[in-house]
Amino acid sequence: MMQTLYVELGERRYPIYIGSQLDIATLLSPYLPNKQVMIVTNDTVAPLYAKTYEDALQHLGKTTATCILPDGERYKNIECLNLIFDALLREGFNRDCTVLALGGGVIGDMAGFAAASFQRGVDFIQVPTTLLSQVDSSVGGKTGINHPLGKNMIGAFKQPNIVFADMAQLKTLPLRELSAGLAEIIKYALLGDIDFLIWLESNIDELVAGDEEKLAEAVYRSCAHKARIVANDEKEHGERALLNLGHTFGHAIESYLGYGTWLHGEAIAVGMVMAADLSCQMGLISAEDVERVKHIFQRAKLPIRCPNIPIDDFLNYMSHDKKVLNGSIRLILLKSIGEAFITNRFDINMMKQAILNHLEQ
Amino acid sequence: MMQTLYVELGERRYPIYIGSQLDIATLLSPYLPNKQVMIVTNDTVAPLYAKTYEDALQHLGKTTATCILPDGERYKNIECLNLIFDALLREGFNRDCTVLALGGGVIGDMAGFAAASFQRGVDFIQVPTTLLSQVDSSVGGKTGINHPLGKNMIGAFKQPNIVFADMAQLKTLPLRELSAGLAEIIKYALLGDIDFLIWLESNIDELVAGDEEKLAEAVYRSCAHKARIVANDEKEHGERALLNLGHTFGHAIESYLGYGTWLHGEAIAVGMVMAADLSCQMGLISAEDVERVKHIFQRAKLPIRCPNIPIDDFLNYMSHDKKVLNGSIRLILLKSIGEAFITNRFDINMMKQAILNHLEQ
Repeated sequence: MMQTLYVELGERRYPIYIGSQLDIATLLSPYLPNKQVMIVTNDTVAPLYAKTYEDALQHLGKTTATCILPDGERYKNIECLNLIFDALLREGFNRDCTVLALGGGVIGDMAGFAAASFQRGVDFIQVPTTLLSQVDSSVGGKTGINHPLGKNMIGAFKQPNIVFADMAQLKTLPLRELSAGLAEIIKYALLGDIDFLIWLESNIDELVAGDEEKLAEAVYRSCAHKARIVANDEKEHGERALLNLGHTFGHAIESYLGYGTWLHGEAIAVGMVMAADLSCQMGLISAEDVERVKHIFQRAKLPIRCPNIPIDDFLNYMSHDKKVLNGSIRLILLKSIGEAFITNRFDINMMKQAILNHLEQ
Repeated sequence: MMQTLYVELGERRYPIYIGSQLDIATLLSPYLPNKQVMIVTNDTVAPLYAKTYEDALQHLGKTTATCILPDGERYKNIECLNLIFDALLREGFNRDCTVLALGGGVIGDMAGFAAASFQRGVDFIQVPTTLLSQVDSSVGGKTGINHPLGKNMIGAFKQPNIVFADMAQLKTLPLRELSAGLAEIIKYALLGDIDFLIWLESNIDELVAGDEEKLAEAVYRSCAHKARIVANDEKEHGERALLNLGHTFGHAIESYLGYGTWLHGEAIAVGMVMAADLSCQMGLISAEDVERVKHIFQRAKLPIRCPNIPIDDFLNYMSHDKKVLNGSIRLILLKSIGEAFITNRFDINMMKQAILNHLEQ
């Protein structure tokens, strides 16, 4: 079982292979012009999957080395990025090499930024091993690291040569991370595809239970949705901003709690609930719509409230988000369930209320 | 007196203004869409010129901040790069900001890489204040930082909105740095323009003496040469590699001595002499041609020998250079004076001899 999706970016067009038990060596071979391959992974994923990839690459006659970073969003920083550069140079890798990211979104973001920056750009392959990274970071080319004053503040746009999303690797994923991935999948439904939301409402229990065929379908539909948007708007000048539904609120939660305390998917689930609440206060969607949003997140075992963050701190962290244009906050809100839009016209007090309504008491 | 040169890169086309006492505010205004401008400079240049730029920008209604880094190639590292990100975030700069590099090549490279990476890319303006950076880093978009295991190993291609090369700022430049800039100017003559070499041989004394009109002419001809090559080959797949004449040897010298001990221009002067020597041994140019190369460097007050580096160390550092393709060293050599070519076909013993011939005893 395998589906192939192409991200259409002209000469940087690349395929995403989605399936179970993918044959790595055969699929990789046409996309690996270089002899040197650096596998970047973390200390959770390495013991599970690194050897499989090392063996497959060596079978293809490649020279491999593996750079193992500590696992966690809190290590998505400039110091750990530098460990990748250290490994590349220590192993004598030159500009004709490939960086292969084997891990979740943090590994994909860091390895991708390293591939964009090492020798001003080398080849890049992505093997996302979490549901979140399969639907999120495998399409779009956004890479980067965090800074103590903000998330993803430093980075590059870097497109991979190829992406592998293997559902069999999700067997080892903690349930909490599976749910975090579902948050991002639900996001695609809420922002632009009511039919997908109906499909998710019918299949959410199987998805939470780890049904590989349903997961592959959900990943395929999410990636296809994102790929279409990204192909239209690679550098995020317009439509692509819609993908940030729930993110400005969510980033504030993650920043305040410290990166890695909450999973990204958990934070944006609450962020989407806040965006829905504000949309409801503005008369765009109904109270029942807000309940529907909350309900799908609850069934996906996701939070719909966040810890009691002081409102001024919350607003301060929101204003550090990248979606701030010339000092004014731009939000992604819902015109209806299944249709998002971007705006900087909203009542700040309503926004505060939407936040306060979803803080734990 | 002002000349304008356009670097033709499609939608990223930009002008270089070359002259004396340029009117900053008037010239900058059309190229500054953003309100926030971060001036990145160093502790040598800041006391001389920072206030002029701050005043001009404030006169245009811009919000400015100034990030002052320590002066020197040894600070072109990831830690100092991070100081720029710290400043941008501390000052609340967002993705609609401009980074203005005010300084030599080190500042241009670091500020450019920061502009390429901050928020995955913001606007960039270059004001090179050394002769070397006026002819070298102001055209081509190469930015980056050093790593303990190699020079310029980490970076990005980033084109500026505009470049100002003001000869009046060279008055405060140490003579040793003026000579280092002349090394890069002579390089353009050697690799592709015999007429320019003849002009340089007639005017080298005035250039060394700091004649602003002659310097502007030399900068214009060098930038025009580089701009033509870069427009043909932005990402260095072919012809652009010729610009590295003397650089693989030169980088080994800089790496061995520690970045900043020798100036880049000094190292590549010796590197070009070594490349000429090897070209002579291969029967491509005559012994008189090699003497002609040495003579122009000597008249420009540049070294033609380097300290006595153990040959194995020298070769080891050369193999860390980026011009290594799949393990084999590619060199830029001379077919004739005024015509360079790239090759990986040369006798390694001849290369060693070319190095040994130009080490101090």
